[in-house]
Amino acid sequence: MRILLVKCHPCPTSYGAAVAARAEATLAAAGHELRVTDLYAAGFDPVMGEAEWRHYHDEALNQIPVADHVADLTWAEALVFVYPTWWFGLPAMLKGYLDRVWVPHVTFEIPTATSPMRPRMQHIRKIAVVTTCGASWFVSKMMGEPGRKTILRGIRALCAPRCRTRYLAHYDMDSSTAQSRARFLDRVERKLADF
Amino acid sequence: MRILLVKCHPCPTSYGAAVAARAEATLAAAGHELRVTDLYAAGFDPVMGEAEWRHYHDEALNQIPVADHVADLTWAEALVFVYPTWWFGLPAMLKGYLDRVWVPHVTFEIPTATSPMRPRMQHIRKIAVVTTCGASWFVSKMMGEPGRKTILRGIRALCAPRCRTRYLAHYDMDSSTAQSRARFLDRVERKLADF
Repeated sequence: MRILLVKCHPCPTSYGAAVAARAEATLAAAGHELRVTDLYAAGFDPVMGEAEWRHYHDEALNQIPVADHVADLTWAEALVFVYPTWWFGLPAMLKGYLDRVWVPHVTFEIPTATSPMRPRMQHIRKIAVVTTCGASWFVSKMMGEPGRKTILRGIRALCAPRCRTRYLAHYDMDSSTAQSRARFLDRVERKLADF
Repeated sequence: MRILLVKCHPCPTSYGAAVAARAEATLAAAGHELRVTDLYAAGFDPVMGEAEWRHYHDEALNQIPVADHVADLTWAEALVFVYPTWWFGLPAMLKGYLDRVWVPHVTFEIPTATSPMRPRMQHIRKIAVVTTCGASWFVSKMMGEPGRKTILRGIRALCAPRCRTRYLAHYDMDSSTAQSRARFLDRVERKLADF
């Protein structure tokens, strides 16, 4: 499969970066064709400014500032997102990647009074989310898991009708141990090996 | 009441900006003491960088880069957020305001193996969200309303136990009319006049 791995962590020596590295190595070893977008390393700007906002609906203009990322989206057959969960959701950096790169006409057609939103990402057959959460599983559920829903509902709604999803989270990070962290790395490897 | 109004829109002549202006005028006319944070106008940087991430848990350091915003948080008795809903959630700019400003020891104490997360924002008695959504009410519900949950569950969990909330949304923005937009402005005024 052609897989686009989007990773988002401010610190390249963090556990979160190790999780992303394990995901990447596992997918490469399984023989997939991989493209990697490292948002922090690329210095991606997540802020949609006024000019971009004005051109958001314009097919001829809205892709220009993010053309390379758009090319990756149209190339991919599967998406893997690796990020730390902050405030139960995506870091601003990753949210801005959705805001700015997932533009209309590329990823969906804007709904009108007479037609609903039409998806344009039906070439995506699988999505995986790999994340770390400070909160427990229970608190994350209580808070409604905004990050999980953003990707596995909002983004998935644009993909293939039977697009399969996988959600891997290490909860309770603040009381994690060397053992729990190693166990999660192994779980990421196991679950992505047959992705 | 002392109210902190946080507004987030890239375009000062947009309908979204008009909604924020109506909210602000209404709250001021009701005699509240107001502070306004206009994230785009302030050029707020929503990206938590590596140095800040490393100092995230350090009470002596984590507030320094965002001291003015932290002072507003400790001053306020109520919060009003006005923003466009993008991808069913907060624009990256507003998400980054939570990521960077709502630091531990100011807004909450990090959970440990033996104690749960402890809230530190119990002086906040009311929260309002005022937003515009491209999606319909039904689709927004189906997608799980990540933005609403981020603020009215995640943020609210740190506030007064009986903190009251109000959620005002103009859905179906892409098929909105001059009439629907005027009606929503009036609704914002009515609902915030007795906030």
